[in-house]
Amino acid sequence: MSKAVGSPKKLLKKAYDAKVSRVRQELIQLQVDLQQTRTKIVLILAGVEGAGRGDALNTLMGWFDPRNVETIAVENPSSEERERPFMWRYWRSLPSSGRIGIFVDSWYTHTLREETDNRKELAKLEDEVRRIRHFERLLADADTLVIKIWFAFSKSDQGKRLQRLRADPATAWRVTDHQMRAHRAYQRLARTADHILAETDRPGARWDVVESAEPKPRNLEFARTILRRFRAHHRRIVKANGSTPTKPNRIIALRPDGRQRLLDLTLDQKLSASAYEAKREKWLGRLNRAVRRAAEAKRTVVFVFEGQDAAGKGGAIRRLTSAMDARDYHIVSVAKPTDEEKAHHYLWRFWRQLPRDGRVVIFDRSWYGRVLVERIEGFCFPREWRRAYTEINDFEEQLHDHGSIVVKYWLQISKDVQFERFKSREETPYKQHKINAEDWRNRAQWSAYETAVGDMVALTDTSYAPWNLIPANNKRFARLEVMRQATKRITEALDS
Amino acid sequence: MSKAVGSPKKLLKKAYDAKVSRVRQELIQLQVDLQQTRTKIVLILAGVEGAGRGDALNTLMGWFDPRNVETIAVENPSSEERERPFMWRYWRSLPSSGRIGIFVDSWYTHTLREETDNRKELAKLEDEVRRIRHFERLLADADTLVIKIWFAFSKSDQGKRLQRLRADPATAWRVTDHQMRAHRAYQRLARTADHILAETDRPGARWDVVESAEPKPRNLEFARTILRRFRAHHRRIVKANGSTPTKPNRIIALRPDGRQRLLDLTLDQKLSASAYEAKREKWLGRLNRAVRRAAEAKRTVVFVFEGQDAAGKGGAIRRLTSAMDARDYHIVSVAKPTDEEKAHHYLWRFWRQLPRDGRVVIFDRSWYGRVLVERIEGFCFPREWRRAYTEINDFEEQLHDHGSIVVKYWLQISKDVQFERFKSREETPYKQHKINAEDWRNRAQWSAYETAVGDMVALTDTSYAPWNLIPANNKRFARLEVMRQATKRITEALDS
Repeated sequence: MSKAVGSPKKLLKKAYDAKVSRVRQELIQLQVDLQQTRTKIVLILAGVEGAGRGDALNTLMGWFDPRNVETIAVENPSSEERERPFMWRYWRSLPSSGRIGIFVDSWYTHTLREETDNRKELAKLEDEVRRIRHFERLLADADTLVIKIWFAFSKSDQGKRLQRLRADPATAWRVTDHQMRAHRAYQRLARTADHILAETDRPGARWDVVESAEPKPRNLEFARTILRRFRAHHRRIVKANGSTPTKPNRIIALRPDGRQRLLDLTLDQKLSASAYEAKREKWLGRLNRAVRRAAEAKRTVVFVFEGQDAAGKGGAIRRLTSAMDARDYHIVSVAKPTDEEKAHHYLWRFWRQLPRDGRVVIFDRSWYGRVLVERIEGFCFPREWRRAYTEINDFEEQLHDHGSIVVKYWLQISKDVQFERFKSREETPYKQHKINAEDWRNRAQWSAYETAVGDMVALTDTSYAPWNLIPANNKRFARLEVMRQATKRITEALDS
Repeated sequence: MSKAVGSPKKLLKKAYDAKVSRVRQELIQLQVDLQQTRTKIVLILAGVEGAGRGDALNTLMGWFDPRNVETIAVENPSSEERERPFMWRYWRSLPSSGRIGIFVDSWYTHTLREETDNRKELAKLEDEVRRIRHFERLLADADTLVIKIWFAFSKSDQGKRLQRLRADPATAWRVTDHQMRAHRAYQRLARTADHILAETDRPGARWDVVESAEPKPRNLEFARTILRRFRAHHRRIVKANGSTPTKPNRIIALRPDGRQRLLDLTLDQKLSASAYEAKREKWLGRLNRAVRRAAEAKRTVVFVFEGQDAAGKGGAIRRLTSAMDARDYHIVSVAKPTDEEKAHHYLWRFWRQLPRDGRVVIFDRSWYGRVLVERIEGFCFPREWRRAYTEINDFEEQLHDHGSIVVKYWLQISKDVQFERFKSREETPYKQHKINAEDWRNRAQWSAYETAVGDMVALTDTSYAPWNLIPANNKRFARLEVMRQATKRITEALDS
């Protein structure tokens, strides 16, 4: 058999193969390089129906080292996903450091399906677009490389493809009603997509368009686009060359009014043991009813406890849970993040703890560590804790929008009372595990914390997740106040 | 108001309070002590309908420090739970080191509901009882403290309770049909329970019975039982005083026949590039059909790849996945466990990676690390890797019983070929990340690995999860063989 070396088709194939070979080699090299820099990569695939996302993806997977790559397709959300805020399903799938997450279905899938032609739907669309922008900004800010690919495909190419498939009995089944509808609505869908793409094309989360008329050029262009983004990101990292945050010399208030609110609290509010006993029973009953009503309404209650060391968070939580059935609540004690948690965005470890609808979760310390200990100890850069206020508000708004009831407490004690409690802990055998050198170190930074707490209170006191500032020098008073505010807030949320 | 200090009721209450106070103090102290020894504690609550498990639990939670305690109630399994082997829902809820998991619903809930009176159901019951024994043994062997409480309640007490509840309009709604049925079937349920309790009362997983006629004595007895178990466990740990495993001097074969099977393989099987190309297309097509059929039948396929360093696992996996849609498979690259994984049983990290029904998961290295690297490097005690063969067989049987298809490969190369490949990796820029000092160190233990692999192959080659030994000196031959065996195994499983 003689080889037809010179035929145009063979030549084309040869040229293509050569290009592919070059792309593949650089692609895998950069994949390894980026993995070694512990970069998180999010790759979003979207585009016109029939443009061949699936085929392009399969080709790409053959070129990648597939072992650090995950493909995410959330087509049919599970009950566990539906029973949590919308973005939970994506948070749980986010790649950790050094990994690539390819989203075949993404936070765009739902939004792009909106077929808007009246004002009301347009308003809803704007809401979703805003949410997407926030989320991608959050990812990009935390150095996730976000690559968004739009597979473009003309109406006539789409039509030809459908015709071709329908003509062959072996492939006719692949043409679904959904595809036919998408073809008829091409113009309208294109307008919506154009709008969404324009509104979500932002620094750190740019769209790249890949022309998809022909499979081979499409796949090559797809890989090259990714390569270009990999290369640029790698250059940026190498240039940044791993600077680390340092402990600040002073903590300067952003919002002195917040600190003033703390100072204005009357910390020593008396409550006798007998008055406490009587009231406690009453409030336990009310709280119990409120929590049961929330469970019946499938509304999750998210409690957040913050406060100085020895402010009485543990004791208050214990009294709170005594009003609940042990099967219905879950306490998350927030300490140092695990290494899996460290390989993710700082909010990831809290997203992962969100329960299904109608349950209670109690955070003993929380995401507010970002703007307290991390700010004061310099565990993150100033730009990081500064933007955390917005990120946290956005997170709590998502909880609220899903129907969850967020109840936040700051337990405030005086410096003297803390001293007494530290001493008592050191002297009581079964309390000694609750006190260590770190507590004393934190105490030495009392005024820095006061400033940071003030800023936190001022900047994250929202209508959907207001702060309850609890004077806590008197434990009985504080515990009762915690129950009272919980009952009030849950009842109001259910009645509104 | 004069105090009626001497009234019998008050005296009783006082005596009770004094007892509670003593129990609480020791309970919380031991909770802290056991937490510091990083003990995992599983507490199972079961018993007669109406005996007051919920009330006892709520009381206990008020006495514990609730922050390291989790309550697990899996009453209505989610779709994510139903679409995985039965025990997945419990594995995902197991407490990590230093934590207590309280199972209100446990692996007993389902089993106890069986109302057996004919031979066939009895056989099924025996199966479940056997499974429970295996699971609890596995937990106890790995130093989990397993405490099982049975709340005993007589038929007449149960009847009185139901009558009392029904008499009061405010509580009548609490009496469900299920409870009435349970009351009528009391004797039969008691017989079944007696049988199950006897059959699952084993060393390391003993039942403790708590008489539940009256709430207060019941709660006290409940707490005291736990205390007794805590105390005994703590003593045992203090006595054992943290010995650690050491690297063995030699690896002695348990099953020389296994090693012989490896030595009998013809490693150099030729396959020309053109023959490979032709056959590859054919097998890719067949494999693709087999995987699609499995997905339609909602059968999960679990691939396990083991082999020496540079045996070609990555390449074989890449060829395998090229026959699949990127949305349908998931590759788990097994490296060092994370600290969350280290805080659990060694199988936990694999259980957590099991996908929902109808998907493909590919383990690039796997649970077999326990009997390979961990055995050879002395990362675990001999008793630990020795019992791992049984634990692994049991795990794979559970996968099989759920309908998953397990396909296991051992890729075998010769020492010379490994040397060539190591050299080539060192010399090719984009392969350098695949080779390091550890690979050379492993190579120096070639014969130890050969023995360990031989034992593994002999001891875990089961009918439900047989080993495919792949001669892999020729990459093309190995890759084709991997596809061929995958197709064969999946098709056979679907047709049987």
